[in-house]
Amino acid sequence: MIRPKPLSGFPEFSPDARIVELAVLDRLRETFELHGFASIETRAVEPLDRLAKQGEIDKEVYVVQRLHSEPDARPELGLHFDLTVPFARYVLENAHQLQFPFRRYQIQKVWRGERPQEGRYREFTQADIDIVDATTLAAHHDVELPLVTLSALERLHVDLGVPPVLMRVNNRKLAQGFYLGLGIPDPAEVLRQVDKIDKIGPDQVQAALAEQVGLSRAQAASCIALAGISAPDEAFVDEVRALGVEHDQLDEGLALLADVVRTAGAYVPGRLVADLKIARGLDYYTGTVYEAELAGFESWGSIASGGRYDSLAADGRTTYPGVGLSIGVTRLLAPLLGKGMLRASRPVPTAILVAVDAEETRAAAIAVAEQLRSRGIPTEVAPKADRFGKQIRYADRRRIPYVWFGSAESGEVKDIRSGEQVPADPATWAPAPADLKPTVQATPPQS
Amino acid sequence: MIRPKPLSGFPEFSPDARIVELAVLDRLRETFELHGFASIETRAVEPLDRLAKQGEIDKEVYVVQRLHSEPDARPELGLHFDLTVPFARYVLENAHQLQFPFRRYQIQKVWRGERPQEGRYREFTQADIDIVDATTLAAHHDVELPLVTLSALERLHVDLGVPPVLMRVNNRKLAQGFYLGLGIPDPAEVLRQVDKIDKIGPDQVQAALAEQVGLSRAQAASCIALAGISAPDEAFVDEVRALGVEHDQLDEGLALLADVVRTAGAYVPGRLVADLKIARGLDYYTGTVYEAELAGFESWGSIASGGRYDSLAADGRTTYPGVGLSIGVTRLLAPLLGKGMLRASRPVPTAILVAVDAEETRAAAIAVAEQLRSRGIPTEVAPKADRFGKQIRYADRRRIPYVWFGSAESGEVKDIRSGEQVPADPATWAPAPADLKPTVQATPPQS
Repeated sequence: MIRPKPLSGFPEFSPDARIVELAVLDRLRETFELHGFASIETRAVEPLDRLAKQGEIDKEVYVVQRLHSEPDARPELGLHFDLTVPFARYVLENAHQLQFPFRRYQIQKVWRGERPQEGRYREFTQADIDIVDATTLAAHHDVELPLVTLSALERLHVDLGVPPVLMRVNNRKLAQGFYLGLGIPDPAEVLRQVDKIDKIGPDQVQAALAEQVGLSRAQAASCIALAGISAPDEAFVDEVRALGVEHDQLDEGLALLADVVRTAGAYVPGRLVADLKIARGLDYYTGTVYEAELAGFESWGSIASGGRYDSLAADGRTTYPGVGLSIGVTRLLAPLLGKGMLRASRPVPTAILVAVDAEETRAAAIAVAEQLRSRGIPTEVAPKADRFGKQIRYADRRRIPYVWFGSAESGEVKDIRSGEQVPADPATWAPAPADLKPTVQATPPQS
Repeated sequence: MIRPKPLSGFPEFSPDARIVELAVLDRLRETFELHGFASIETRAVEPLDRLAKQGEIDKEVYVVQRLHSEPDARPELGLHFDLTVPFARYVLENAHQLQFPFRRYQIQKVWRGERPQEGRYREFTQADIDIVDATTLAAHHDVELPLVTLSALERLHVDLGVPPVLMRVNNRKLAQGFYLGLGIPDPAEVLRQVDKIDKIGPDQVQAALAEQVGLSRAQAASCIALAGISAPDEAFVDEVRALGVEHDQLDEGLALLADVVRTAGAYVPGRLVADLKIARGLDYYTGTVYEAELAGFESWGSIASGGRYDSLAADGRTTYPGVGLSIGVTRLLAPLLGKGMLRASRPVPTAILVAVDAEETRAAAIAVAEQLRSRGIPTEVAPKADRFGKQIRYADRRRIPYVWFGSAESGEVKDIRSGEQVPADPATWAPAPADLKPTVQATPPQS
């Protein structure tokens, strides 16, 4: 049998890279839980009709079928392509036993049956937080969600050396109120054009607003001016006011966006800007929208995004509005790992290897190991009673920092990096705190 | 839209049950890492030909295909039905960059396209540990694996109140050597019959050994006597010896099984027995075999199993022997949760709710919350500036133990269980240690 080849679009990490991933996932989970989000997991499959949008199924869905199903059986299930569709279904299915507002986080793999290309994955991990309520959801949750997400991403930066992020936030109501205040009858159409600014530039969009949407020259210029406003603080409010447009929805949007910017500035300074050209998911989000990139690595695209949706789910009787943010864990990590910017201090959890004198005394080595483990120290027993040089090499190849020689009664520990060897008692010896578990080390990108 | 129905065979846990599951998974991971096992995850899909056994694909495979693939495209991928097949492939694919012996744990979902029935899952979580080496794998790893698995399961028992387990262990070589020592030419055929003892009883098997396999009355009686031996300590060795059979393979098997029993007895006493009728996976395992049940709940079936395989993987040049044990996490947990035997102390991570006096002072509440979170205390801010009775009810319904009233400068904390309310400073206040995180509570089964 020849060596199997990787499947394109299905990344698998080495044990070393997986340690980095676990360090990331642990910090995301811890931050979400510190903010009172409860974990759920949903099954990998959803009925195909739930994966459909407006009756149409996107190309990217993977269909799942029993191999030995009836030959003419129609496929009914597909792998979920995000965590929002399954969460909406979970909320409807369990509404009678959930407490609203319901705060949940969900860290799972999702699948998209795309044609593979650079930076596109067919299987990848997302980490989502959402708050959903029945009938109405308070506006302050729009302020809370970026705070939680940025706290999580900031921990990755401070603890692990992941580059810092910049989150851009806008509010759909702000733009809509502004357009209505200008006397434009169809704000949605303006939004659709403004969404193209990053692609085709403001001049082209301004022309399209005049020619295709039928705005006056002054109206089109105002819309472009609004989209050009961006600020790391509440200064954007005055800039918008200076454009001289008045509308209730504009006021509402400005106040909420100012609150988002102010709160993020207080707790995660420098990581969030109001950017009034951000549109995102035009058919989907109805209020605040979020989009985050790694600062200095904007070409990698968005690594977190989300927004407010007035109807996350509805069952005919009740509508469930929500606000959510999703971190693309694989999207964030795979390039950092691929470029060698993050790596684990060692590819194994083991802090110490207990050497074995002879196979006959392996039981004594196990006794030492079990005593160390009972004190929380990850320990391996050498697999072979080789000469000690070989056993040290076993540790060295795995970057295990310490080797134990001798029995519990008369033992010594060698730090194989310094070569220093000292007498040790398995009831009291401990590694340097930094050596207890593998750590994550960051290095600048190799160009 | 009507309320969606659960999909049979795809269990989804409530937030409460998920907290129990996370407590279990955390302890499994911690124990595996304490023993130096590195985490890996493999993609959910494998090429269908890898999922085939001896060219035949089992009924249980779920095929995965892009919805919009070419109409006559043959399906090529399936969801993995265990973690051994993907691990074997991972070893072959990465052999050039792995250090052998390679110790890995893997906690992931697996899928089986079975017709659903009580206790059968189509999606479930497994937690596997394996040690694999190139060419040869030392026998002492057969002793190590049940020790690690039993340590993990014992932690679930001691920390969480999961019922204790009993692991039964046998060794294929022991039986084979015994049969060869009796002068039986085809030991595999005897093993196949002996494997039926639990189903049809020893008398029927003894008859079949004589009639179908052609053993003498004395040979058949000896085989049945061997299968009847079971002991929690090394006493089984003398019982086997008393049957008066001699063979090198028998000696080898007896010595190894005695080592397994002795070592487990020293570190996890009372949880492992030698049971010489255990066969398991006849075409698969070649040495030690393991099988564990929850004591008192044997009818739920095996919750962990595994064994030694002389060829876990092979690439034509190198053969990779391995020994592995797999814990059926869903299989273990779903009945315990379903019968109310395990539950979380609360369905949210939140230890304290910060009440909000008025929407205008929400920023002050956020400031308190952020200070508590910075000290590792899971904190929520009340979603609505309701009257305090309602805010306390919000906490109570989620079993959040504490509510904070007032600002950072002049705050008080109420323990809503006792009603006791005391002045508190967010820079120093901490919940009772048992209240910091949700705990798992065990109750006897409700009959």
